[in-house]
Amino acid sequence: MLRTHTCGELRLEDLNKIVTLAGWVQRVRNKGGLIWVDLRDRYGITQLIFEEGESDAAMLKTAASLGREFVVQATGKVIERTAKNNKIPTGDIEIKVAEIQVLNKAKVPPFIIEDETDGGEDLRMKYRYLDLRRNTIREKLHLRHRMMQETRKYMDQSNFIEVETPVLIKSTPEGARDFVVPSRIHPGEFYALPQSPQTFKQLLMVSGFDRYFQIVKCFRDEDLRADRQPEFTQIDCELSFVDQEDILELFEGLIRHLFQSVKGLDLDNIVRMTYADAMRLYGNDKPDLRFGMTFVELNELAQGKGFNVFDSAELVVGVCAKGAAEYTRKQLDELTNWVKRPQIGAKGMVYVKYNADGSFKSSVDKFYTQDDLKAWAEKAGALPGDLLLVLSGDLHTTRKQLSELRLKLGEDLGLRDKTVYKALWVLDFPLLEWDEETARYHAMHHPFTSPKMEDLPLLETDPGSVRANAYDLVINGVEIGGGSIRIHDRERQQLMFRHLGFSEEEAQAQFGFLMEAFEYGAPPHGGIAFGFDRLCAIFGGSDSIRDYIAFPKNNAGRDVMINSPSAISGDQLAELSLSVQPKKE
Amino acid sequence: MLRTHTCGELRLEDLNKIVTLAGWVQRVRNKGGLIWVDLRDRYGITQLIFEEGESDAAMLKTAASLGREFVVQATGKVIERTAKNNKIPTGDIEIKVAEIQVLNKAKVPPFIIEDETDGGEDLRMKYRYLDLRRNTIREKLHLRHRMMQETRKYMDQSNFIEVETPVLIKSTPEGARDFVVPSRIHPGEFYALPQSPQTFKQLLMVSGFDRYFQIVKCFRDEDLRADRQPEFTQIDCELSFVDQEDILELFEGLIRHLFQSVKGLDLDNIVRMTYADAMRLYGNDKPDLRFGMTFVELNELAQGKGFNVFDSAELVVGVCAKGAAEYTRKQLDELTNWVKRPQIGAKGMVYVKYNADGSFKSSVDKFYTQDDLKAWAEKAGALPGDLLLVLSGDLHTTRKQLSELRLKLGEDLGLRDKTVYKALWVLDFPLLEWDEETARYHAMHHPFTSPKMEDLPLLETDPGSVRANAYDLVINGVEIGGGSIRIHDRERQQLMFRHLGFSEEEAQAQFGFLMEAFEYGAPPHGGIAFGFDRLCAIFGGSDSIRDYIAFPKNNAGRDVMINSPSAISGDQLAELSLSVQPKKE
Repeated sequence: MLRTHTCGELRLEDLNKIVTLAGWVQRVRNKGGLIWVDLRDRYGITQLIFEEGESDAAMLKTAASLGREFVVQATGKVIERTAKNNKIPTGDIEIKVAEIQVLNKAKVPPFIIEDETDGGEDLRMKYRYLDLRRNTIREKLHLRHRMMQETRKYMDQSNFIEVETPVLIKSTPEGARDFVVPSRIHPGEFYALPQSPQTFKQLLMVSGFDRYFQIVKCFRDEDLRADRQPEFTQIDCELSFVDQEDILELFEGLIRHLFQSVKGLDLDNIVRMTYADAMRLYGNDKPDLRFGMTFVELNELAQGKGFNVFDSAELVVGVCAKGAAEYTRKQLDELTNWVKRPQIGAKGMVYVKYNADGSFKSSVDKFYTQDDLKAWAEKAGALPGDLLLVLSGDLHTTRKQLSELRLKLGEDLGLRDKTVYKALWVLDFPLLEWDEETARYHAMHHPFTSPKMEDLPLLETDPGSVRANAYDLVINGVEIGGGSIRIHDRERQQLMFRHLGFSEEEAQAQFGFLMEAFEYGAPPHGGIAFGFDRLCAIFGGSDSIRDYIAFPKNNAGRDVMINSPSAISGDQLAELSLSVQPKKE
Repeated sequence: MLRTHTCGELRLEDLNKIVTLAGWVQRVRNKGGLIWVDLRDRYGITQLIFEEGESDAAMLKTAASLGREFVVQATGKVIERTAKNNKIPTGDIEIKVAEIQVLNKAKVPPFIIEDETDGGEDLRMKYRYLDLRRNTIREKLHLRHRMMQETRKYMDQSNFIEVETPVLIKSTPEGARDFVVPSRIHPGEFYALPQSPQTFKQLLMVSGFDRYFQIVKCFRDEDLRADRQPEFTQIDCELSFVDQEDILELFEGLIRHLFQSVKGLDLDNIVRMTYADAMRLYGNDKPDLRFGMTFVELNELAQGKGFNVFDSAELVVGVCAKGAAEYTRKQLDELTNWVKRPQIGAKGMVYVKYNADGSFKSSVDKFYTQDDLKAWAEKAGALPGDLLLVLSGDLHTTRKQLSELRLKLGEDLGLRDKTVYKALWVLDFPLLEWDEETARYHAMHHPFTSPKMEDLPLLETDPGSVRANAYDLVINGVEIGGGSIRIHDRERQQLMFRHLGFSEEEAQAQFGFLMEAFEYGAPPHGGIAFGFDRLCAIFGGSDSIRDYIAFPKNNAGRDVMINSPSAISGDQLAELSLSVQPKKE
C-alpha cells in the first residue's frame, strides 16, 4: 500500500505514530515560516505541516509548490495540533511531514472542487470525473451504494433469489421505444434492450423460482425529458402464490428497512388509497401527503346561483389553504396568472378569503352571499384566516389543474419539507386507458396485469371502468414503484390482448412463448418494480435523479464526457450489413 | 398468501396443524383406495394423501385426475406417515387433504422434469422455463445467487463502493467486437455496449472513489465459441494507492471468503508463479495445479545421440506420468494418435517406460542406451512403474502440445478431481504480444496496463520482453480473473499508445477524455475483473458456464426461447435512419 492510513482515520490516540498518507491537495497555506497542507481522500481530510528550520529546504520547496488537486504521498509523525479544528474528526492532530512525494501533478481544474462550485452544469458534465470529487456528489453515490446493499440484504433475508435476466432480448413492434442492437452474425436481425425484464421474471415464476429479484438496468429510447435517462435502474421483483396484500406488506417492509438502515428514520405507516379516491381528493394518482389541503367538491353549493362559469362546469372544486387569507391582491393575481399559464391551462381562479373577523371576501361576491360562502367554508373545514381557491371546468382537466395549484401552494406555504417522508399505496388502478391518438384502449400498467375478478363482465360493456389488481407506491408525491398481480392463464391473457387490439397473430408472434409457458403449469403470481434512481433521489431529498447516477446522460441523451453517441466507421457499418439513410420526414 | 407453509417446511413438530400448501404435482400414485400426490415447490416436496371413504368423491376424482406439473393448492391436516421417507426433510409427515383446488393445469411437458431428463439441449433451451424447474439447474442458479451476495458482502466490508457505470457508451474502432446501438434522436450516431467498464472505473479512481466494484454485464460480439456468451457478467474492481501485492492479498481474501461461505471449504494458500515459469513448467499460462506432472526439458540429455527428430528440435520436453508404465501398446498408440490430431498437431510422441524391474522400454531404443534413458528418468524424478512421454519441436508449439497432453493424462489418470480446488496467481505477464496478422504489437492485457519500471528501457529495443504489472487468477486450469496496475500519467499512456501503433490523433479521438483526466490529479491505481459466470461454474464443479446463466444464448448467439435476434419492422428501421444492406463478401 502506498499509505498506512486514510486521510479520515487518525486521532489523538495515534500521537507519535509514524504514518504515511496519500491523497489530493485540497488547500495550501503558507504563513510565518509554516506551511499547512490539507490532504483529502474519500475518507476525510488530514492536515500536513512543514516548518522552516525543521523541514529540509527541498521539502519546504516541494510543499510550497503544491497546487490544488496534486496527488501526494507524505510520511511523518502524528502530532497534536495547537489550534484544533472541531469541524472534522481528524481536527485534533496533524502530520509533521518527514518525507513528501508528488505522485501526480494536476492542472488547474476548470471549476472549484468544493461543496459550492462555480462550475455550470455543462462544464461539470464534461468533467464529470472532477465533479465526482466533490463531497456533495460523492455522498449521493455513497447513499446509492448503501441503498443497493440494504435492498439486497432485505431481499436475501426474505428468500428472494437474485437472477440476472438477459440484456440482449427481442424487439416487439409494441416496444416502439426499444433500443435495438444489430447482430453481426445474423445480418438484418436485431436484439433489443429491455424496457423491463417483465416477461423473463414471469417465466421465472413459471419455473418455480417462487421469489425473484434483481437490481437491473433498463432502457427506453424516449424523447427525453428533463428527469429521464435513456438507461435507468430498477429494483425488479416477482413472487408466486401471493395476493396483493402479501406484496404490499412485504414491500412496505423493504421501504421501512431502507429508511431505518440508510437514514435512521422510522417511516409512518404506509396508508392506502384507491385510485378513485386519490383522483377525487388530490386530483392526482401520486398525491403528496406531506400536507392535507384535500379537494372539496362544491358543485352542489356553488351551482345555480347565476355564476355562469360554475353553472356550466362539470366540476367545481376547491382547496383550503390554512392561514392564507392574508394573501395580498398581488399574490392572488400572481396565483391566478400561474394557473392560467399554458402548462396549467386554467381559465381562471376564484378565491374566497375567510377573514379573521368572520367575514368573507371573494372574487365572486357579485354572485354569492356571505352565507353561501360560509357554507363553502364549512364544507372545506375552513376557519377564519384561511383561504379557499376554487377551479372549475371538466372533471379530468380541473382536477389536474387544481392538483398543480395544490402542490404549488404546499411549496409556497413550506408544507413540503424534504426531511419529512409520507408514503402511500395507491390501489385499484383502471386496467385500461383510452388513447385518443390510436383510438383504442391501452394497458395502463402493462398487458400482463390481471383485472379484478368482479369487474370482468365490464370488459365487454365498459372497458374503461374495469379495475386492475395494480398498485403504486408513492412517496412525497413521487411514484417510486408499481406493480400488479399478473394474469397466469393463456385464455385470459389472450382475452386481454384482444381487448388491447392485438390480432391473434400479433399476440402469438410477440408473446407466444409466454402464453405457451402459461400452459405448462403457471402459478398465480405478481410483482413490483421500483425506480431505483428516483428512490435514491427521494432518500437524498433531491428532485433530480441525475446526481444519483455516476455518469448520467444529458437531456439530449448524450454523454458529453466521452462524446457518445457518435458516428461509427463505414467498416463497422458494413460488418453489420447496415447503412445510414437520410431521415424521412 | 395462497399458502401457510412451503413444501419444504413441515416436520413432525407440526403434527395436527391445519395447513395450506401450493405447488406443482411431481407425481401421483394410486393404490388400494389411496392416492398420494408429491407436491413440489422451490423449497421441497411434501406428500399429500387422499383416502377412499374418508375424502369426498369429488375430491378423490380431482386428485386422481391431477397430471404432472399441475399447479394445485391443498388444505389439510399434518399427520405422521406410516412409511417414512428419510431421503427428504419432510419425509416424516404427510397432509391429509380436506380441500384441493387446481390453480392451473399443465400440458404434458416436452421432456421429463427430473434430475435426469430425456430432453436434448435444443429442446431444453427452447423450453428453458421448464428446464429451470429441474433441481440440478435451479441449484446452480441458487449457487450463483449466493456467490453474488457473498461477493457483495466481502466488498462492502472491505470499503468498496458499488457504482453502476453506463451500458450505453462509445464505440471505438479498436473495439471491433463492440455491439452498437443506433440512436433514434441522433440519426447516424451510435452508442456501444461495453466490453468492460475499464475507462469508467479508472475515471472513478481519478474522482477519488478509492475503492470501486460492480457486478456488471459486459458484451462482446465475438464469433462464438462453445463456452462464450455474447453477454457475460464480471466482478469488476478498481483501487487507488495500491501496489500489486495489496491487490493479490485483498482478492485472495475474496476467493477464500467465497469458498468458505458458499462451499464451506478452506482453500489452500494461493501460490504465485511467473508467466515465464508457468510456460516453462506447464506450457500454459493457466496451469491446472491439481496435479504435478511438470515439464522436464531434455535437450541436454537427448540431443547429439543421432536421433534426428530431437537433434533438430528447439525443445525436447517431457512429462512423467506416475504409475503409467503399464500403459499397453494400444493405449500408447492411441495417445500418439491423439497428439497428432490437427487440434494438437504434434508430429509424433516418444515414450519411455520405466519398468517395475528397473529396465527401460522406449520408442527410441534404437538411439538411446538404458543409461541414457535412466538419466532422463532421473531428471524427471521418475520411479519404476512410471511413464515418460516426450515431445519435441519449436519452443512455443511444443509447450502448447505437451500442455494439452499433460491435461489429457491428468484427466485419464483421474487427477483432475472436481471437488478439489487449486488456485494460483500467474504474475509478470508480457506487456505486449506480437500479432502476425496485423504485423504489430498488441497489448496482452489492455493498453492501460503499466509496464514494470525496470523493463521500461526494453520498450525501444525488445518490446516483446517487457513485463507488465499484470496478474491472472487461475483455478483448476481455468482463468478466473485478471488485472493490472494501470498507467496513471498522460505521458506514459501516450507512449503506450504509440508503441501499440496508434497515431496521436487516433489515441486522442478514442481516449482523449481519459488522458485529459490523468492531467487533473490521477492517483496510482490498479484493479482486477473476474469472469463471474465462469467462477460460478468452477464453484459448481462444471466445465460449462451455460447452466449458470438463467437464460443463456446458444452457440450462434441466439435465444431460441424468445427467437432473438430477429428482423425489425421497416418503420423501426426508418425511425433509426437505417437500412439493411446485403452483406459484402
